[in-house]
Amino acid sequence: MNSMQWSIATCSLGGSLEEKLIAIAQAGFQAVEIYEEDIAGFMGTSKELRALAEDLGLKIVALQPIRDYEAMPEPHRTQNRERSERWFDLMEELGVNLTYVCSNTSPLAIKDPELIAADLYELAERASKRGIRVGYEALSWARWVKDWPQAWEIVRKVGHPFLGIVLDSFHCFVRRNPVQDISHLPPEKIFLVQLSDAPQLEMDPKALSRHHRVMPGQGDWEIKNFVYSILASGYNGVFSLEIFNEWLREAPPAFVAEDGIRSLKYLFDQLGLLVPSLPQGGRVQDFAFIEIVAEEDDLRELKFLLDTLGFRPECRHPVLEDELWSSGKARILLRLFDDESTSSREAPSIVGMGIEVGSSSSLAARTRELGLTLLTKNSGTGFLGVEWVGGTKLYFCDLAVEGIYGFPNLHLGLHCTRSSRGIERGSRHSPSITRVDHLTNIVPRWELYHWILIYKALLAFEVDAPVEIFDPYGLFYSRSLRSRGSLVRIALNTTEGLRTHTSHFLRSLGHAGIEHVAFLTDDIFHLAELSTKNGLPTLRIPSSYYRVLPARFNLPSHEVERLEAFNILYDKTLDGGEFFHFYTSSVGGRFFFEVVERRKGYAGYGAVNTAIRVNAQLYDVRFREKESSPNERLV
Amino acid sequence: MNSMQWSIATCSLGGSLEEKLIAIAQAGFQAVEIYEEDIAGFMGTSKELRALAEDLGLKIVALQPIRDYEAMPEPHRTQNRERSERWFDLMEELGVNLTYVCSNTSPLAIKDPELIAADLYELAERASKRGIRVGYEALSWARWVKDWPQAWEIVRKVGHPFLGIVLDSFHCFVRRNPVQDISHLPPEKIFLVQLSDAPQLEMDPKALSRHHRVMPGQGDWEIKNFVYSILASGYNGVFSLEIFNEWLREAPPAFVAEDGIRSLKYLFDQLGLLVPSLPQGGRVQDFAFIEIVAEEDDLRELKFLLDTLGFRPECRHPVLEDELWSSGKARILLRLFDDESTSSREAPSIVGMGIEVGSSSSLAARTRELGLTLLTKNSGTGFLGVEWVGGTKLYFCDLAVEGIYGFPNLHLGLHCTRSSRGIERGSRHSPSITRVDHLTNIVPRWELYHWILIYKALLAFEVDAPVEIFDPYGLFYSRSLRSRGSLVRIALNTTEGLRTHTSHFLRSLGHAGIEHVAFLTDDIFHLAELSTKNGLPTLRIPSSYYRVLPARFNLPSHEVERLEAFNILYDKTLDGGEFFHFYTSSVGGRFFFEVVERRKGYAGYGAVNTAIRVNAQLYDVRFREKESSPNERLV
Repeated sequence: MNSMQWSIATCSLGGSLEEKLIAIAQAGFQAVEIYEEDIAGFMGTSKELRALAEDLGLKIVALQPIRDYEAMPEPHRTQNRERSERWFDLMEELGVNLTYVCSNTSPLAIKDPELIAADLYELAERASKRGIRVGYEALSWARWVKDWPQAWEIVRKVGHPFLGIVLDSFHCFVRRNPVQDISHLPPEKIFLVQLSDAPQLEMDPKALSRHHRVMPGQGDWEIKNFVYSILASGYNGVFSLEIFNEWLREAPPAFVAEDGIRSLKYLFDQLGLLVPSLPQGGRVQDFAFIEIVAEEDDLRELKFLLDTLGFRPECRHPVLEDELWSSGKARILLRLFDDESTSSREAPSIVGMGIEVGSSSSLAARTRELGLTLLTKNSGTGFLGVEWVGGTKLYFCDLAVEGIYGFPNLHLGLHCTRSSRGIERGSRHSPSITRVDHLTNIVPRWELYHWILIYKALLAFEVDAPVEIFDPYGLFYSRSLRSRGSLVRIALNTTEGLRTHTSHFLRSLGHAGIEHVAFLTDDIFHLAELSTKNGLPTLRIPSSYYRVLPARFNLPSHEVERLEAFNILYDKTLDGGEFFHFYTSSVGGRFFFEVVERRKGYAGYGAVNTAIRVNAQLYDVRFREKESSPNERLV
Repeated sequence: MNSMQWSIATCSLGGSLEEKLIAIAQAGFQAVEIYEEDIAGFMGTSKELRALAEDLGLKIVALQPIRDYEAMPEPHRTQNRERSERWFDLMEELGVNLTYVCSNTSPLAIKDPELIAADLYELAERASKRGIRVGYEALSWARWVKDWPQAWEIVRKVGHPFLGIVLDSFHCFVRRNPVQDISHLPPEKIFLVQLSDAPQLEMDPKALSRHHRVMPGQGDWEIKNFVYSILASGYNGVFSLEIFNEWLREAPPAFVAEDGIRSLKYLFDQLGLLVPSLPQGGRVQDFAFIEIVAEEDDLRELKFLLDTLGFRPECRHPVLEDELWSSGKARILLRLFDDESTSSREAPSIVGMGIEVGSSSSLAARTRELGLTLLTKNSGTGFLGVEWVGGTKLYFCDLAVEGIYGFPNLHLGLHCTRSSRGIERGSRHSPSITRVDHLTNIVPRWELYHWILIYKALLAFEVDAPVEIFDPYGLFYSRSLRSRGSLVRIALNTTEGLRTHTSHFLRSLGHAGIEHVAFLTDDIFHLAELSTKNGLPTLRIPSSYYRVLPARFNLPSHEVERLEAFNILYDKTLDGGEFFHFYTSSVGGRFFFEVVERRKGYAGYGAVNTAIRVNAQLYDVRFREKESSPNERLV
């Protein structure tokens, strides 16, 4: 084991072993750990399995694991010796020379380091006769040996050349084990390194592992530091992803395997160890525009709605119906639905988002290196880009080209003109929407980690702590992502329930998508007043909300009355940050807009008002469409 | 508050406040706690809300809660005083005279019992001027006051007549607080008692609460003891269900409210305090029969399959095609699918299950008292019964009527006769299936707790510890239920994922159902040999499984060869219990049979082999139907 190799354990993917191995090889791995249960379920002989791996160019670096082995009372101790011989038989058939013992979880396990050492010595001795090396891994939920320093102390004492330690970042971080000390280990005694990550959730290790354990970069731990310490020891062997999480099993195996390569590339690139290193990509500066597709009626409704919010048409396509509407830096590209150009996606939908970047070509290169589907300039708006959440598109708009929305705007192929259309403004310094504040990506549960990784690895976004939010019919889970400088903010939401608004959105669309866009203003009251006067269909918030609000936030009554007059919701943080927001009715039942004002550094999204908003939306739909209650039973 | 009342908090249900209150009243509650967010989302005025509650005959016993109130630094302390006045305003509008403070969770909360006491005194003093009483509740995830004895110590010291304690079984049990000591509290200082339960899972309190907190009887805690201690204090006021769980919100509100009444009836009946008490119901003795409906082709296949397993037709309906097949005590009632009698259920399906009971009429009375839908003798097989999982039927078969399957069997309307049909047996003492071992109920996640409660409350079943099991495409959650004496065993399974076999089953059926029936034999090898010879289509287990098995259990090779010859799976416990099981191919892609042999007290279900079995079933389906891979993406 002389040069660094990337591997993934088959237990990290769903499907049959054959499907898994194919996906792993196609994603670009050259090594794999095979999990005991996957071998047991393989439809073929050992010989066929060995041949399959060889054909796919995959080296089987380990068969894993040997469970509940060491320090058992008799007769289990003797039986364990016997069964380990059968395990070695299998390893020989498959031509694999590394396995490992996970520290004992059995209630019968004896708390006796001497006995553990004796059993491991004996095991290593027998393994050595077959040229097999045995690792010992501290499992965070084991009976006695939960921490790697304990495991190491035993391995060191045993001193057998065929016995080493297996280090796993999950167990290490979840138990808050010392990471830096790893660098003092003799590298030849580290037989295998396993990598995984997890979000910052308080949970017992096993529950965290089963439901939330993820790939490096998909969680919140500093896996970089772990790898750094490993490398500092002089270790230069296999780094293997081992993630036993139900949601990774739900995803298609190719999807998970590709995320695995992406995760490792991102991790090792951050450490300066990827050769060649990833193209820089450059900093994401701001939103450039939002792209919406609609059929004619919806388009008319949309334009009316944007008009009441103070948006004005800025450019128009010389031939097509496409128009760019703007208010301050907020820009909406409205496109007429067209079967040919918009594929099978149903209108109306928010189908794309442009972001201002330092160098679109550099970001495009990074996109390719991270294995994502690059969109060429011919494939839509004339910008480079990448396929994004639920088949939407993310466009890279060069900052370098001064005024990408200057007149004329060549990129969008639009003919730009100052518009004279629209309503009269109330004053010269009319209140206005200044920019896009954030938007919401709704994804199925199994896609959550995928998008966290991509926002981080491709765009260098930062991630806020995970939040769980009750909606009237369940609970959803949200991670907020933001560009450096926080000008581009994305709320990434998912759910496990089937009746949350998040779930309804996914079902109605058939896949992930963008649920809403929030615009920023610096005078929400004035804007709401004008917009309402001009006929904006705002979402009606129940008056009861404004009875409860003073009991939540000690607001003076005249302030509450103003909020109520315009259906504005409110939140306040302990350090005085304030958030004001109102919603429009939904467009075609598919998406909606929000207008927000942030004061004194409020950085959230008004989650406290989510259930109120969702109930109001349901009421709105029922009221408008006279539909029946959504109380259908779901399975 | 002089007489015991049952209440439920509106946060325990999904939907709008109006929907919740209607469901709560219709289920039979006379009292309700209203949650702050539900008021805020109410589509109407305070006056209308008050009138709605009055019209429904619901007393609003509390508005809840006041959060993050006590021991805050300025300016929050002053602001909290102000906002509490607005809360009291609202309470007056609604005519409610009880509220409570949940112990502070804010990171700013000051650790100072004196300050907490001072703030609560001041709050109670102001409340008292309006005739409002204030409770103080220790929240298990609060910053400082996590345990009721801490909260009580503060309330006692304050000594204000308008300040009392609120006791909640969830926080008490999750923090392992002393339960018996509650009996020493002065009853007039207990302002409210909240009840909930939870399964035995290791998890931090907040995560447990959000995802798993349930009604009394749906979890594993001894809520009886809690109530007993409360009553021993002399308290005789409101007992309120407060369960803030995402899955209860997903369920229809009427469903949850009815479970609430059922839960309280069961709980107080166990304490001898329900008037009138529940009819005994009597002990469930054994399986009586399994009812299957199929169309002609499937029926033929089924009969062939049962024949190869040694079942023989025992009775036949004089007019219809119905037949009762049996082997030992295992009996299968086969019915020809008939649009009229079988409603809209699609054939083939396992549509019912008969159980032997002490007194069907007593159990029928208990069924009615627990608010379940009783089936009269005319509605199917001629037995009393109850609507069961996913619209299946559970029939009550009297033990008292000697030989319910005697000749002739009047109940089933079948004409019984010894059959001369079928294959020749190999020997006089031929191996055979002796009885039904267990069956699997698969339910949507939100129905899980409902069925646990009903199995316990109606049938006095016991519940094993919760188990999480990986399947090839995710994870499912299982609770095993068993009658006293363990003759009737049910594995109750659910899943949150969308690609597990559990989820596929639910989607294919459109609702909950019975996935498989396992038969018991005392000589599985002999039975498998004969059945296979007679053409039984068994599920093929990959040979790899038999390569891995010796490494799992140290089995001698001749034993492994025998297992492999008949596709038998194997498990063994630490104390030597052994489990042997094989599966049939599925019938019409809808359900399948299992044959099991248990040795030396093995009490489980071979969960270790689940992924192997599911993979083999998928392979079987693909092989037989040449279908494409199930890798479609799901949202």
